[in-house]
Formats: sequence, C-alpha cells, structure tokens
Amino acid sequence: MSQMDDINSYLDDNFDAFVDHLRQWLEIPSVSTLPEHRADVAAAAAWAAGRLRDIGFPQVEVVATPGHPLVMASWMIDEAQPTLLVYGHYDVQPVDPVDLWLSPPFAGTLRDGNIYGRGASDDKGQIVLVMAALQAWAKVAGQPPINVKMVLEGEEEAGGESLAAYLPNHLERLRADAVLICDTHMVNDLQPSLITSLRGIVCAELAVFGARSDLHSGSYGGIAPNPLHALCLLLSRLKGEDGRINIAPLAEHIPTPSEAERQLWRDDSLGIASGLLAGMGVAESVGENDYPLLERIGIRPTLEVHGIVGGFTGAGSKTVIPAEAVAKISMRLPSELDPQQVFTWLEEAAQTLMPRGYRLEVRCLHSGRGMSANPDHPAVHLAAQSVEAVFGRPPVFLREGGSIPIAALFSELMAAPVVLLGFGLPDDEVHAPNEKFSLQQFRQGMKTVAHYLGRLRREENFSPAMPPPV
Amino acid sequence: MSQMDDINSYLDDNFDAFVDHLRQWLEIPSVSTLPEHRADVAAAAAWAAGRLRDIGFPQVEVVATPGHPLVMASWMIDEAQPTLLVYGHYDVQPVDPVDLWLSPPFAGTLRDGNIYGRGASDDKGQIVLVMAALQAWAKVAGQPPINVKMVLEGEEEAGGESLAAYLPNHLERLRADAVLICDTHMVNDLQPSLITSLRGIVCAELAVFGARSDLHSGSYGGIAPNPLHALCLLLSRLKGEDGRINIAPLAEHIPTPSEAERQLWRDDSLGIASGLLAGMGVAESVGENDYPLLERIGIRPTLEVHGIVGGFTGAGSKTVIPAEAVAKISMRLPSELDPQQVFTWLEEAAQTLMPRGYRLEVRCLHSGRGMSANPDHPAVHLAAQSVEAVFGRPPVFLREGGSIPIAALFSELMAAPVVLLGFGLPDDEVHAPNEKFSLQQFRQGMKTVAHYLGRLRREENFSPAMPPPV
Repeated sequence: MSQMDDINSYLDDNFDAFVDHLRQWLEIPSVSTLPEHRADVAAAAAWAAGRLRDIGFPQVEVVATPGHPLVMASWMIDEAQPTLLVYGHYDVQPVDPVDLWLSPPFAGTLRDGNIYGRGASDDKGQIVLVMAALQAWAKVAGQPPINVKMVLEGEEEAGGESLAAYLPNHLERLRADAVLICDTHMVNDLQPSLITSLRGIVCAELAVFGARSDLHSGSYGGIAPNPLHALCLLLSRLKGEDGRINIAPLAEHIPTPSEAERQLWRDDSLGIASGLLAGMGVAESVGENDYPLLERIGIRPTLEVHGIVGGFTGAGSKTVIPAEAVAKISMRLPSELDPQQVFTWLEEAAQTLMPRGYRLEVRCLHSGRGMSANPDHPAVHLAAQSVEAVFGRPPVFLREGGSIPIAALFSELMAAPVVLLGFGLPDDEVHAPNEKFSLQQFRQGMKTVAHYLGRLRREENFSPAMPPPV
Repeated sequence: MSQMDDINSYLDDNFDAFVDHLRQWLEIPSVSTLPEHRADVAAAAAWAAGRLRDIGFPQVEVVATPGHPLVMASWMIDEAQPTLLVYGHYDVQPVDPVDLWLSPPFAGTLRDGNIYGRGASDDKGQIVLVMAALQAWAKVAGQPPINVKMVLEGEEEAGGESLAAYLPNHLERLRADAVLICDTHMVNDLQPSLITSLRGIVCAELAVFGARSDLHSGSYGGIAPNPLHALCLLLSRLKGEDGRINIAPLAEHIPTPSEAERQLWRDDSLGIASGLLAGMGVAESVGENDYPLLERIGIRPTLEVHGIVGGFTGAGSKTVIPAEAVAKISMRLPSELDPQQVFTWLEEAAQTLMPRGYRLEVRCLHSGRGMSANPDHPAVHLAAQSVEAVFGRPPVFLREGGSIPIAALFSELMAAPVVLLGFGLPDDEVHAPNEKFSLQQFRQGMKTVAHYLGRLRREENFSPAMPPPV
C-alpha cells in the first residue's frame, strides 16, 4: 500500500472525528461584524490555534490586531522543500433572518448528508478539511511532506483590514511558494473547478439627509424631503431595470474577454447557468439579459443594494418621514479594475444623479481588489492533477463572481500564485439561512488537499517548471 | 365676577395640578402598534377613566374591544340642553429613534415653557385640557353647562378599527349635537385656526418576492432578482422627483378647489408656508413645486414611503440579496376621495409599474376617510367665537393635511358637525422625537374649551340656527 493509500485510509477511519471538530467550531458564533460577538470571534481563533497545536504544528500563535486576531502557524520540515501558505477565515456572516433556519445556526446539525451551520461552507468547513489532511500526514508520515504555513483571519466578512495591514509588514514571515485558499465552490458535486479570477469589491453607504428632524406625513407629506424616496430615485438611476450601471467611466473600463472565454460562456456545456437559476429558484434571471449569465457573473460589474436603513420598519404602520436614510450597497468588479478608483466614480455619479433638495454622503465601508491566477503555473497544474486524482475528472477553470480581497493582496505582495481550490457547492446557502457543507465534499476535499501536499513535494512529482523554494 | 371669570380663575389656580395630571398620563407608554405595550395601553385607559370619575362624570366605563379598550363617559344634565360628544385618543406613536430624545419619551419633562413626552400634543395633552375645563365647570357650577359625552380610543395611531366597528352599532349611546375633537394644531401661538377638512389616508405595504432564499451577491449578484432594487424602481415610478403620483385615475379625481381657496393658498398672508419650511429646517420644499405649499398640504394627494424592510441593516456590511423586501407607504387623500377606492387604484398601478421577474403583493394595512366641516354651522361658529374670546383674534379656517379617520366616520354616521379645535403648534414634533406641548397653549386651550361649553348652553348664547337637541 502506498503512503497516499494510508493517508486516505486514515482520513476515512477518522472521518467522524473531523466532523466533530467542525461541529465544535460551528458552535462558536464568530460573527465578525457584530460587536456583541467579539468574544466569540476570539474564542473561534483560540479553538483553531488549539487544533493546529494538536495536529503537531511546532509554531502556533494568536496575533492580536486592532480588529480580530490572526491565527498564525508554521511547520517547516526542510529548506529544500517548497512552502505552501494556507489561508482561511474563521469568522462568519450574521445569521439573520434567524427564524428561517431549520436548525440552530450555531449548532452543526447533521441532516441529509450535510452539516448545517453558519460557516459550514464559508469557511470553517473548508479549513477543517485542510487541518484533517495535515493531521493525516502527521499521523502517517510524522510530518507534512512540504513546509506549511497557515494564516487564519477573523475579519474576512468585515473587510479584512487587520490582515491587509499586517501582510505588507510581515512578508518574510508569510513568504511561500504558493498560497492555497479553500473558500470557493465547485460547479456541482461531480464537476470540480479551479478559480482563475475573483471579482473585486466595494462596499459603500449612500446616506441621504432631508429635513432637520423626522416629520409627520400628515403635516408635511407632499412638501417634505423624504430621504427614503430620494434613495429609491437615486438607486433606480444608478442601475435601471435593464441592469445597466449608470456610472459612465465604469462602462469604459470593463475588460474585453477573450473569444475563447466568450465561447465558454455562450456554450455553457456544463449547464452552469441553469444550475444558477435553480439555485435561485427562478425561471429567468434579472438584469443585463443581453449577456450570458456566466459573463455577468464572471466579468460584468454589479451594483446591488443590501439594505435600506431609516424610518419605521416595525410591525404595523408609522407615518413618519425620516430626516435621514442610508442604503447599503456593494459593487463587484472585474479583477482588472481598482476598487478605490471605482468608488470615486460611484461617488461622482451618485452626487450627479441625486434628486434636488437633499444632501448625500457616499461612504466607503471597505474595498478589495479582485485577482487572477495563471492556469499555466505549476502550483495550479498540480492542484488540477490532485483534483482529477480524487474526483476522477479534471477541473474546469472558471472566473468566480465572489470576492476574496486578501487573495488579491497575496497575489500582489507575495509574488506567489494563489490557488483557489474550493469544495463548496452552489446550493450551500453561503451568507443565507441554512448554510451547509456536504459531508461527501468534506471527505473528498480532505483527500484532495492531502494529495496536493504530496504532489508539491519536490523530489517526487514536483513540476520542473516550479521555481526553486524561497 | 361672572361665572366665566370664576372658571378661568379656577383653571389658573389649579394649573399645576393639571400639568401633573398630564405628566402622570405621559408616563404610561401607551404605544398602540407595539404588542409589548398592550398592558400599558390598558393602563392609560384606566387612568383616563379614573380621572373622569374624579371630575364627577356619573357614568364612566372602560369598554373592551377586540383591540384596545374604549373609555366611554357621559354627564347628562338636562334633556333640553344640547349634547357635545368629545372624542380623543389616549394611544401614542412609537418613540424610535429613542436616542434622539433629549429627555425620556415617557416622562413628561418641563423645559422652556413646554412639557416634553410622547403624546404631549398628540393627543393626551389636548384631552387633559378638556378634562380641566370640565373639572372647572364641575367645581364652580357643580356640573357642566350642557350634556357631555366622551369617547376616548386607544387605536388612533394603529388604524382605529375597534371604534370604527363599535360606532355604527352604538349610535344611540354616542348621539350628540356636535362632536368636539382637540387633536390638531394652530397656525402659530398667536393665530388660532379651525380645521374645515382632514385628508383621508391609506397605509399599505408593497411586498416584493424574488429568489427562493437570500443569496450571496458574489455568487448571484448581477443575475439575481433583488427585491430591494425592485422596490426602488417601483417607488420611483409610482412617484417621480417632480412629486407627481403616477396613478392615472387618482389624477382625474382630485377635487377642484374654489377660487377663494386658491387665492388664500397663493397669498398665504399668514406666512404659513414659511413656517412649514422653518419646521422642516429646509430652504425649499420637495415635490410638486408648481403648486403652492398650502394647496399641496390641503388638497393634493401624497404618497410617502415610511420604511423599507429587508436585507441587512445592522452595523457594517453584509452582501446579501434578500429573497423579499417590503416597503411601508401611506397616501393622504383629499376628503372627497374614498380611500378604499384609491387603494385599488394603487394596487393596479403598482402591479403595472412593477419590474419583470418579481411577485408583488400590495397589502392594505388600514385606511380612513377624510372629512370636511361646514364653517357656517352654529357649532363651528360658536367655537370660533370662543377662540376669539380667549386668544383675542378670530381663527382662520384651514384644510389640514393630517388624517383623523374617526372624524369622517362621526361626520358620516352621526349627522352631527365635527368641530376640529386644536391647540397644538407646528413645532410640536408630533410623531417625531422630542414631542412637546406648549404650557401656554395648554392653559389657553382649557379656557377656550370651558368658554365653548358655556356658549353652547341653549338659553344663553346658543345660536338660534342650531338645531334642537337630540
């Protein structure tokens, strides 16, 4: 039996323990955007550090930051071997509306071959599968086959400022030959995929001010500025029913996809578009319907409104005209665009499109660049081979609609390829009620990562095209 | 010294006690729209019943309803005398945003010649001044000069359904020669006014449904239905920046004001419009700026959005595309229009204007007719004379922008004139943080109502044009 067979057996034999690890972590409600969960976020960091020590990492540290802590670990086995930096995030999205969850969001409930809980797929489950792969190597071979560093942050869902600030000042500590991020999803449970680009993101608030105080619609309705209505006018102008974003310089800067990519989007031989429609539970998409769905997800910019704050939103009615109202919006951007630049375009367009009689403040909550990975790099190739070895078919290379700003920073600052190898599924309900992770994906993910670690080992299968270790 | 002088002296001598009564009542948080305040609403009703018994009303009853209770009282002194029915409401609006209050909303704090608290002006303060006038008559003359009935409801801010259902079945019990409602405001502290019309109201929800569950904007942004954006499109179509409401049949049914009324609105010799702008703290109004402000407040229909529910509205950002979103809106309507009819027009227009790819539900939360009072009726004339006797100048007759649906029902069902004699001021912050009532208005109000009770007495000043008592 080969070493890889031993490792796979170890992963199968101990699978229930790994599920239990994930369940323990899911029980810690590490919601990074809500101040009341600060201690929980810290507890989730401590849990991760404990696990990494248990696996055998000789160096594990919880690093305090102005925000939530970083969990840093490294296991250097041999300077002649390449170093893989594994990135993940242990913070999770808020869970509201909580009454739509079929089981408690912070419980890790097993049902129908899945584990349910906030963070199951995004991203705790995908970190735990990497931990499992490392534990298998440690138990079977005494150590990982290559040098491994890990950095886990607690602010991915809250802008990721602390790691973004830490990274440029600690490049030596984090230096690696490749960065592995397991925080994306596959096309479906049969068809694995590797992500070649991530969209950038800007999260912003449009704050509109009208009268000096809230007003009664009986006394002032029909003559008063109504910031809620002004936001409706503004948002309908920034993006129409046709989905076109009315920010002139943006339209001029959308990159032109290659003909091959266009072909892929048009043909959609994997039926990804119909999977997306099924995921939404709708018969037709909304927005720029003159573009293929995959083009819209992959390269078109988006502008979405996520919430409107102001006035009365309780039960019943209150005929108040609020003095101010705020829209929370985000824009997803093709990886080629600079989000800070786009924010200034947004601000200018919003001020221009704003109805008369109001004051508008456009605030940047956070932003992050997109990134693209070269599919020809050996670190990406070897990942594709590992996927094929476990899943039985080669992965497709896709542009991903989501944003992992830190991936762009790694790519930019570390001059290392970022391998986006995700095991989520499109119906994981990431960011929504009833988030889950397929146990089958969890198992295959462990085996794929364990395989990848072995492939990266220099004297065995390491591609000669891979640059020498740092 | 005349009896009226004695009554005025009694009111002055006991003024602090009346302020204390109001303070006691303001301390009871009788918010009718919030289920958690149900017991408080009942306590506010019990407090009123106790006060009416203390004053000397021989019949006082708290009547249970499917909603909040009614407080009913009557003091019949002489069948030959006319009967005045006094209506008021002891429930109040919610107090959020509570952090904008300078003193606790449920405290009755004295500051700068005002009493601050939710309900100070709308409507507890204006009921307590009627109670004070009745107490003065009871102490000075042993009883009121005419027959008095009172009905106080606890659902005015929540649709008023229970009284509206009770009224048609208890017309005999409530029958009166005139109805007095003190729940409006004067032009300013020098210029009293009587209201000749109230706008009708429809409160509705526009509920928009998109995908089957909340979605992540990274995975689905740009292709998913976004109910928040759809609401923005819909609301911007229902009413544009020019303030025109895009409901075709509505435009055809707006009544034509008389040339005299137009003249009054154009001239605005009392400077009411600039008072409204000052009240809003803005340099110019928003909306149908080709109509005078007073016309827009008095007779033009309005459509205002009061809140938008859905998505993420907490601190920070969450890039969720919600599966559904709800806009809470109201329409104020000229008294001539039937709100139920207008609701069907609204529903039709909204369905027509709705963007593709969504399901829209238009729900009527509640509605109430407007009303108009004939200024030539003696019950209105005598009120004007009483105002002039106390304030030193005759009141102006105005159309009021607000809605008191029950006034329309009284007017319709009881064939009695409804006298809208209000002592609030435009800066009372009704429905907003820091609601207050001027103590000077409180005092003058008592004296005016006491005077009016005396004037209504048949053998003295009662106008021969007043129909015989019922």
